[in-house]
Amino acid sequence: MLQSYLQDTWVTPTATRASAAAAHDAVTGETVCHVSSEGLDIAGAFEHARRVGGPTLRALTFHQRADLLDAIAAAVRARREELYALSARAGATLNDARYDVDGGVRVLRDYAARARTELPDAPHLVEGPAERLARGEDFLGVHLVTPSPGLMLQVNAYNFPVWAPLEKLAQAVLAGMPSVIKPATPTAYLTERLVRILTEAGQLLPGALQMVVGSVRPALDLLGEQDVLSFTGSAATAETLRTHANLVARSVRFNAEADSVNAIVLAPDVTPGTPLFDAFAREVVTEMTVKAGQKCTAIRRVLVPAEHEAAALDALASELAGVTIGNPTTEGVRMGAVVSLTQRDDVRRAVRAIAESGRFVYGDPEKVRVVDADPERGAFLDTLLISADPDAAAPHEVEPFGPAATVLAYRDTAHATDLVARGRGSLAASVVSDDLAWTTAFVRAAAPWHGRLHLLDSTNRTQTTGHGSPLPALRHGGPGRAGGGSEMAGIRGVVDLMQRTALQASPRLLNAFAS
Amino acid sequence: MLQSYLQDTWVTPTATRASAAAAHDAVTGETVCHVSSEGLDIAGAFEHARRVGGPTLRALTFHQRADLLDAIAAAVRARREELYALSARAGATLNDARYDVDGGVRVLRDYAARARTELPDAPHLVEGPAERLARGEDFLGVHLVTPSPGLMLQVNAYNFPVWAPLEKLAQAVLAGMPSVIKPATPTAYLTERLVRILTEAGQLLPGALQMVVGSVRPALDLLGEQDVLSFTGSAATAETLRTHANLVARSVRFNAEADSVNAIVLAPDVTPGTPLFDAFAREVVTEMTVKAGQKCTAIRRVLVPAEHEAAALDALASELAGVTIGNPTTEGVRMGAVVSLTQRDDVRRAVRAIAESGRFVYGDPEKVRVVDADPERGAFLDTLLISADPDAAAPHEVEPFGPAATVLAYRDTAHATDLVARGRGSLAASVVSDDLAWTTAFVRAAAPWHGRLHLLDSTNRTQTTGHGSPLPALRHGGPGRAGGGSEMAGIRGVVDLMQRTALQASPRLLNAFAS
Repeated sequence: MLQSYLQDTWVTPTATRASAAAAHDAVTGETVCHVSSEGLDIAGAFEHARRVGGPTLRALTFHQRADLLDAIAAAVRARREELYALSARAGATLNDARYDVDGGVRVLRDYAARARTELPDAPHLVEGPAERLARGEDFLGVHLVTPSPGLMLQVNAYNFPVWAPLEKLAQAVLAGMPSVIKPATPTAYLTERLVRILTEAGQLLPGALQMVVGSVRPALDLLGEQDVLSFTGSAATAETLRTHANLVARSVRFNAEADSVNAIVLAPDVTPGTPLFDAFAREVVTEMTVKAGQKCTAIRRVLVPAEHEAAALDALASELAGVTIGNPTTEGVRMGAVVSLTQRDDVRRAVRAIAESGRFVYGDPEKVRVVDADPERGAFLDTLLISADPDAAAPHEVEPFGPAATVLAYRDTAHATDLVARGRGSLAASVVSDDLAWTTAFVRAAAPWHGRLHLLDSTNRTQTTGHGSPLPALRHGGPGRAGGGSEMAGIRGVVDLMQRTALQASPRLLNAFAS
Repeated sequence: MLQSYLQDTWVTPTATRASAAAAHDAVTGETVCHVSSEGLDIAGAFEHARRVGGPTLRALTFHQRADLLDAIAAAVRARREELYALSARAGATLNDARYDVDGGVRVLRDYAARARTELPDAPHLVEGPAERLARGEDFLGVHLVTPSPGLMLQVNAYNFPVWAPLEKLAQAVLAGMPSVIKPATPTAYLTERLVRILTEAGQLLPGALQMVVGSVRPALDLLGEQDVLSFTGSAATAETLRTHANLVARSVRFNAEADSVNAIVLAPDVTPGTPLFDAFAREVVTEMTVKAGQKCTAIRRVLVPAEHEAAALDALASELAGVTIGNPTTEGVRMGAVVSLTQRDDVRRAVRAIAESGRFVYGDPEKVRVVDADPERGAFLDTLLISADPDAAAPHEVEPFGPAATVLAYRDTAHATDLVARGRGSLAASVVSDDLAWTTAFVRAAAPWHGRLHLLDSTNRTQTTGHGSPLPALRHGGPGRAGGGSEMAGIRGVVDLMQRTALQASPRLLNAFAS
């Protein structure tokens, strides 16, 4: 029975194994732990965050809060091997685990460095320059950005049990806001280990970080005007949360980062056999296989010019043929399992819906050859490449959250532009081209539908950090289907969690705030 | 029967007088017009905005869009006398009408000037500087801000029939977005006249501005991922809109600017008889009487130190005694009527609820002496000053949207800080003090609860633009009860309507966007 960390103490829920939910090993099917929030004092935890954690964090300057991030990063880094090992139980290879664990450490450090250079050594921020608001010299306007006296409730997805809480924590700590983390059940044991590492390192300030394992549904009624609910997960759950009566009545800030049906677009100028064409194929296969395709940013739609469709399908299939699937701890295995048998069923259902207007070009959704594991007990899936009718609905609407992608052939640029927008809002898209004019025109049309555009060309194909990687410097979150939220984007992600207040005042008063 | 302006044509609804709503003269009770959207092709109007207005506006640069704002401002200014005269029918004095009409013109001009100095002569904005995202020199990150290919639906309140549509239009035009205005029924005839002035001036681009008089409720199902719903009105209606199934399902951007229970705080250092104390009393009375108190930013709670309560009540009562109420077109009348008899009843109900824990110090909610008008046929109210128990709930929760304010005595600074936060989020608060240390400490605690803080002291008391005036340079919108939205705040209000997309690209591509 997994413990929660509330009011600076580890607490066991009152649930029995029968009343709790179970998390299973993705590779063996064994039960890893049970999860429940029965009997936990969540109200007490919120109160503790607001009374103890908040005032402590708010009293620190941005630079002092940055020191805290560095300390947390060091604590995680020191015990990352443990997290790698445990990640295998969620089906993750070492590479996948590094993406999650080292990625989280990098965000913490990046934010610490950014805060020291871009924010003042003060608890609040003055956005200037001061503007004269009237004829005289003594009535000026600036914006003052102050910490909200509330908490951030993180409701996280299962796929990044380490990166997601750390990424949100980085922004919340800098914003002077205590955090309560609610991990997703299938990988709650990884977030629990993370929090245990932090508490054992003794780097957490009292009340600054708590964790509720299990359901927090009843606690949504306890959120108020100064709190933030930061959600990552499905569009369906985002809808439920967004219309929750208390959240609406009190205008609780809600940030959603939801799944989306992300695309990569191969431009007409990139011909088969060129290094850029090969880079395109590698990018698609990387996106299909890293974390077994369980990334909210992963490529689901592969848009190629009709004249290069056959070549693209060949290149992708041959690249996929080199992917070894199996026990993630076994040497040479490139792709592990999806997180659970339920997840495997969901992916199967999704790809079948898409394939209705097309066919499987590579992989079989019903069976897979695996190394060093039982393909039925573990949540294994083959890599699944579909070729479908670009004008059908399913490829643009259905998201197989696993190692699957669909190739869609476009007729001309207008068709490609139209198709990419049919995702109704995505986190990220890639464009592969050396044609400057084509790319700029495409970007102008596609930008309003995307939170991030990754433009691959011959000059940067060896330097890219990849389609799927959200970076601290850049906005993470997209419009429409992607939830309409925004995380990171550098210091913007911190300021977005704070209150921006217009200040109309005399110069002597503004000086008091600036110093 | 008021016409709507759809697809660049004036259209009459199919409603009969019996099926339409009536708008009445606030002063005489006569019917001014009937209002209905029966039979209007709102779907066609949305389509026209998206197919014609949007592409036209998006093709312009920010500077060309600024020229459009100047042309609109000039057209309104040229016929402002008409709007002043018509405003009297809504109960507004000439001063009130200027606040609405000239205020709107000022926002247009301010935004035009701001766009020319702060935005490039291009249709989009690149937010830099470019950051290196990897070891090489060819993989850089910036944010690209592009116009959303959607429309802004303005759902406006009755109290600023000219300023509100123009203020929102200024930001929408610069953002490259066509607008559809839905005015509130009681003053729809004023917005109609505004739009008529604009169409007759021939300054509007096809599809850039349309107006639906009457209900737009069915049209909410037609909004999509790239649209914005900009709402001003009651917190209750904001809740209904925020949970609308289609708006939620498609993550339609929703900005709410709702009523709030705004405060002014007299600091302990300001003693009765000083010029700053007198400025405080004048500010409160101005807020109670301008537009007969029908401003979302108006002061409803007057927090004074207990030791100065009696002096504050005396000063306010004696200032209020000098206010002449009556026909807004009559010379010497300082305050006209509220917008309708229904509104008068609402205010009466609200003040009675607040007075349950206190008493009326000035004014009688049931009767009023008026100049040159019938006090029963017109929606007249006396100025109403209440003294109430600061720890009661009603003064912090109930908003009399009329010429009313409540004095609440605080014991000490902690008590004042606590009381101001009991508004649960406000658009604006004023602090009156010459005590630098007191003010900075108070501001730090109060800022997270406010969209704007207006700090009055002896140096700027003669220069202030007033507690109630939102300015283009400053954020308008507050947390919690105030709706959690943001308008204006300079160019931020424009960027907030556009899509910010992270761009990962080679330098040569970024150059193509920057130029």
